[in-house]
Amino acid sequence: MRITALAGGVGGARFLRGLLQHLQTRDDGPHTLTVIGNTGDDITLFGLRVCPDLDTLLYTLGGGVHEGQGWGRADESFVVQGELAAYGATPQWFGLGDRDFGTHIVRSQWLGQGVPLSGVVERLATRWGLPEQGVTLLPMTDTPVETHVVVEEDGEQRAIHFQEWWVRHQASLPAQRFVVAGMNQAAAAPGVLDAIRGADLVILPPSNPVVSIGIILSVPGVRDALRGTKAPVVGVSPLVGGAPVRGHADACLTAIGIPVTPDGVAGLYADFLDGWLVDKADEASMAGASIAVDAVPLLMTDIDAAAEIAASTVDLGLSLRS
Amino acid sequence: MRITALAGGVGGARFLRGLLQHLQTRDDGPHTLTVIGNTGDDITLFGLRVCPDLDTLLYTLGGGVHEGQGWGRADESFVVQGELAAYGATPQWFGLGDRDFGTHIVRSQWLGQGVPLSGVVERLATRWGLPEQGVTLLPMTDTPVETHVVVEEDGEQRAIHFQEWWVRHQASLPAQRFVVAGMNQAAAAPGVLDAIRGADLVILPPSNPVVSIGIILSVPGVRDALRGTKAPVVGVSPLVGGAPVRGHADACLTAIGIPVTPDGVAGLYADFLDGWLVDKADEASMAGASIAVDAVPLLMTDIDAAAEIAASTVDLGLSLRS
Repeated sequence: MRITALAGGVGGARFLRGLLQHLQTRDDGPHTLTVIGNTGDDITLFGLRVCPDLDTLLYTLGGGVHEGQGWGRADESFVVQGELAAYGATPQWFGLGDRDFGTHIVRSQWLGQGVPLSGVVERLATRWGLPEQGVTLLPMTDTPVETHVVVEEDGEQRAIHFQEWWVRHQASLPAQRFVVAGMNQAAAAPGVLDAIRGADLVILPPSNPVVSIGIILSVPGVRDALRGTKAPVVGVSPLVGGAPVRGHADACLTAIGIPVTPDGVAGLYADFLDGWLVDKADEASMAGASIAVDAVPLLMTDIDAAAEIAASTVDLGLSLRS
Repeated sequence: MRITALAGGVGGARFLRGLLQHLQTRDDGPHTLTVIGNTGDDITLFGLRVCPDLDTLLYTLGGGVHEGQGWGRADESFVVQGELAAYGATPQWFGLGDRDFGTHIVRSQWLGQGVPLSGVVERLATRWGLPEQGVTLLPMTDTPVETHVVVEEDGEQRAIHFQEWWVRHQASLPAQRFVVAGMNQAAAAPGVLDAIRGADLVILPPSNPVVSIGIILSVPGVRDALRGTKAPVVGVSPLVGGAPVRGHADACLTAIGIPVTPDGVAGLYADFLDGWLVDKADEASMAGASIAVDAVPLLMTDIDAAAEIAASTVDLGLSLRS
């Protein structure tokens, strides 16, 4: 089975790690998984290109992630960052560990040599053993794009980088809207549209529907490919009991005028979504929905829990095959 | 007294640290020291600009150097380098520690923002407390230049970067000649020529006469400034008993056809050198020299020993004032 997933950072990565575990237990293999990662939260820090969502996917699927925080590297040290602070380099609000710096340095080196981001990700993924797991990680686009957040302070609107809003301000500045700088020049990275069109199953993990999946959906051609694919498209709600499990999906949804409900999120995908997995606590709120709905506990407390959610997602998807 | 020195890496830095200690004990102050550092051994590694001689000067004069090896940082770790190796990034023959990476990252960031190397060095020097010590560190040029070594292997000549010859091959490949790529486009960095012309005393520390001081001398205008300055120009022999104390000055001298003797080295500076400090063991070899010669023990076994050598150098210089 060829599965394609659209993913942001922590939530998406944890779900997909569970999916890989689940796929190993199925007897209808072999399976391949193509992950289309969000690059809207990419940022250049200290002259180095940082791709937070792609790295979270690499580290999580490759076994190198800091389990507790869900991003960054396990067994991390912060010597380089301390030196940068001693030199007065900015910004200091984005924490980068030494192991993590290794990724950013080699990525920036390769990008500087003219390797496209998709080629860089392929090299990084080799180190993290993704090919051996049947996983292909693709950036949504090779074009540098950056999600900016229009915020209002003291009656004046200004745009700040998504990471500044998310990490520095913890999404506490009321967002007016999200703008993806560079997207009007962007094209889907090689393989992205084919991975959606040629899939047997397309999954939207419980990633942020606005600033992760929403950004991927804004890449030219992606939404059309989702509408046109013959594969069932099933999604996992990022909400449990009407609130995000982690992150700031509520602030993001509110900013674009969408109710913070599973139904509200599903509405963002209305033109292509075939099935929707929600938490048991939210089952009633989906009564009367026009798409297939299943309800299971959605808290990914560990890998096994994530694998069970992934199993329900796959089962829902397979039940919708025409 | 305004002292200007031309310096390479370890030997020059250790001498100048001794000079600063000596100057504090003199009663004819205040004194200022301008150091013109070699940038010919600069190299771009992993997309980052590395300036080994300038950094050795910064770390040594700023109290952050690894005392045992004479370069790099004390209390160093190598996490980033390990990650780069895991990603298969090259080269792996140049050891870079995490603290050191901090310097290279911030320098590359500032260079990328359009700050000239001299401006970058000024910022780095602030962190290392050089201004408080009356020290101004200048790169010899803001133009990126790189010393290449023409070597012969299997009857064929090829040029390799100086660092590859020095670090990777430990100067074991016979050098045919040294070529400074970019020097024909280079100009002395702001302040360099004025620092030589306006000095009360010019010192050549015991740096490598070919690939450190020799490279600085090839910067357009530097040699003319040395010939024209009213200040005495005194040098310290890099040889003790006819051999270099450390490094590969012998291989470098042999490559350009110069005898590995204090007299041979002094001959490289014949058009501007007024005084020459040699080791006691080499005193006889300088008999009949046409310039002022003094002989003292030249082994810089510790800071006090370096300070004594520096005192003799200053005394020799002051004795030559017209």
